[in-house]
Amino acid sequence: MKRRKFLKGAAVGGVAAAAATVSAPAISQGIKQLKMVTTWPKNFPGLGTGAERLAQRITAMSGGKLQVKVYAAGELVPPFQSFDAVSQGKAEICHSASYYWQGKSPAFNFFTVVPYGLTPDEHYAWMLWGDGLKLYTELCDQFGVVPFMRASTGVQMGGWYRKEMRTLEDFKGLKFRMPGLGGEVLRRLGATVVNLPGGEIFPALQAGTIDGTEWVGPFNDLAFGFYKVAKFYYWPGIHEPSTTGEVLVNKKVWAGLSKEHQEIIRTAVTAESANEFAEFTYKNADALDVLINKHGVQLREYSPEILKGFYDASQEVVAEVGNKDPFTKKVYDNFMAARAKAIGWSRLGEQGFLNARSANFKG
Amino acid sequence: MKRRKFLKGAAVGGVAAAAATVSAPAISQGIKQLKMVTTWPKNFPGLGTGAERLAQRITAMSGGKLQVKVYAAGELVPPFQSFDAVSQGKAEICHSASYYWQGKSPAFNFFTVVPYGLTPDEHYAWMLWGDGLKLYTELCDQFGVVPFMRASTGVQMGGWYRKEMRTLEDFKGLKFRMPGLGGEVLRRLGATVVNLPGGEIFPALQAGTIDGTEWVGPFNDLAFGFYKVAKFYYWPGIHEPSTTGEVLVNKKVWAGLSKEHQEIIRTAVTAESANEFAEFTYKNADALDVLINKHGVQLREYSPEILKGFYDASQEVVAEVGNKDPFTKKVYDNFMAARAKAIGWSRLGEQGFLNARSANFKG
Repeated sequence: MKRRKFLKGAAVGGVAAAAATVSAPAISQGIKQLKMVTTWPKNFPGLGTGAERLAQRITAMSGGKLQVKVYAAGELVPPFQSFDAVSQGKAEICHSASYYWQGKSPAFNFFTVVPYGLTPDEHYAWMLWGDGLKLYTELCDQFGVVPFMRASTGVQMGGWYRKEMRTLEDFKGLKFRMPGLGGEVLRRLGATVVNLPGGEIFPALQAGTIDGTEWVGPFNDLAFGFYKVAKFYYWPGIHEPSTTGEVLVNKKVWAGLSKEHQEIIRTAVTAESANEFAEFTYKNADALDVLINKHGVQLREYSPEILKGFYDASQEVVAEVGNKDPFTKKVYDNFMAARAKAIGWSRLGEQGFLNARSANFKG
Repeated sequence: MKRRKFLKGAAVGGVAAAAATVSAPAISQGIKQLKMVTTWPKNFPGLGTGAERLAQRITAMSGGKLQVKVYAAGELVPPFQSFDAVSQGKAEICHSASYYWQGKSPAFNFFTVVPYGLTPDEHYAWMLWGDGLKLYTELCDQFGVVPFMRASTGVQMGGWYRKEMRTLEDFKGLKFRMPGLGGEVLRRLGATVVNLPGGEIFPALQAGTIDGTEWVGPFNDLAFGFYKVAKFYYWPGIHEPSTTGEVLVNKKVWAGLSKEHQEIIRTAVTAESANEFAEFTYKNADALDVLINKHGVQLREYSPEILKGFYDASQEVVAEVGNKDPFTKKVYDNFMAARAKAIGWSRLGEQGFLNARSANFKG
């Protein structure tokens, strides 16, 4: 017991090697224990529960040979140290979103979301069939990490505001929580922008440290209760139209897995990229209803002036960021070419259908 | 050798029991051989190749314990007998689309696509998180089949026409290939509608047996070469906005699998529902470019009159079909309630973003 307790304590401190917590009998049976750190609060709807479900799938498909234990934000390492934890071998897997790591390279932004970039379906297409995942793998390789595309949370909502936003002028001096490139666009429009992990947003909003925030969409935003403090809920989420997660695996750990176990992890993550995204789509529709009809939230569409101002600023920001270094430029050019083609097809397909349906639907 | 040859011949004839083709040494190693029949031509882009990829995933994740062999349309049974083949145990798995089985129950339509119904993302949401898959499972149970949701091919294109379609009048007397409820809507508008498996469409179009056809979208339509015969390519695919495939497993075979192997099949199919859909999204964009710029295809948007006429007729048809029997009514009511909620959310999310993007994009 003492030895187990010591090892557990050491793991919490983040210094135990990957295999140290596995008992000798487990090793002899070929059982591997994998720690999965996340950037989400414990069992947070959709994101945290999605991590648990992914872990269970991997364990079930491997017949118990791969035991994955999920750690919520702060349980093993602080949320924004999750990448380093996997890079350094303190954890084997990370369940997160790549734009949190933009401090390491601006290229990380493109694998999560770009303001006015792609829809979730277009993003999946670029990642899985275009060059997205190849470029992401190239980027992560220098950090000793193997990346996979995880679920999108869907087109996000614009965010929560205490007051109505009518013109671009209204953004000047606004204190707002927005991560990634969207945050940089808001800064360009005159706002004071902060990034905060999910669990710290509500207290900051309540204390008045920030005037407003974006997070995800109706399902996740309802869970955090932002409607209690800010009543105006803006759409559409032009700053994050595709927000797509990641799963990172320590490169040495990955190389040590059998082909069978590699395929189990790869396939489980891809399955959850359909399943978790579907959860968001389904529960956003339900939660939207609750927010409007139970909590009296006021929906507001961004004005054409704001939509255009944000578009122009976002194209500037994305181009600047995309030209910061040769690798990021390669990612930027590839992303923008894929985007132009995707727009050509979506105009006829998804957008064509949605507009035809809403022109005739009497709801 | 003689015994093996005999058994192989018997399997092709469709009378061998599931385990009969597995050699004695294979059984002693716990290896199961599973025949997967499909409704697609051999290695047909996206659909046929997706079936092959699914088979490989299952085999890889099971460490070779589940050997899945894919049969193209007609190789083991004719394409439209695939459901019965799995129901009767001639094959263990089927890779298809449920609306082909509407002759057994009109409820089968709802699990593939409904004219003016759901987008692919909304359909996944209803199937995986709403009651879709539960109802589908209930329906298939009486046939001794366990169903799973497979990939969507995306919002389809409206179809290929030899002449321009300007008004509802133009549909009268038109001989057109369209399956499922969309076909019934066209019939209501005065067209003569036929259903044909994929491989039989081009010859019929070339021979003039049909005046036009829909199939899938740019990627798949280019592969069949319809542009050689019909130059006008209409959008959007109001008759099939979500066309989503299925994987069916013989119920006794499913019950005989370990929990581990069940989870491997379930997860592999879900992974391909993201991966194959992403392939369609990506390759549709590329193929659209080729069709327009290399083959001189003329894109045409359906007129508001046609969009409205098709909408009104489709709501009538779907309601009539949805009230044919108590089980189908249960599915219809559930589908329509999910659709109303989905439209509320998509209006702000996906549609809101797509319209904001195209209002500002200078392509």
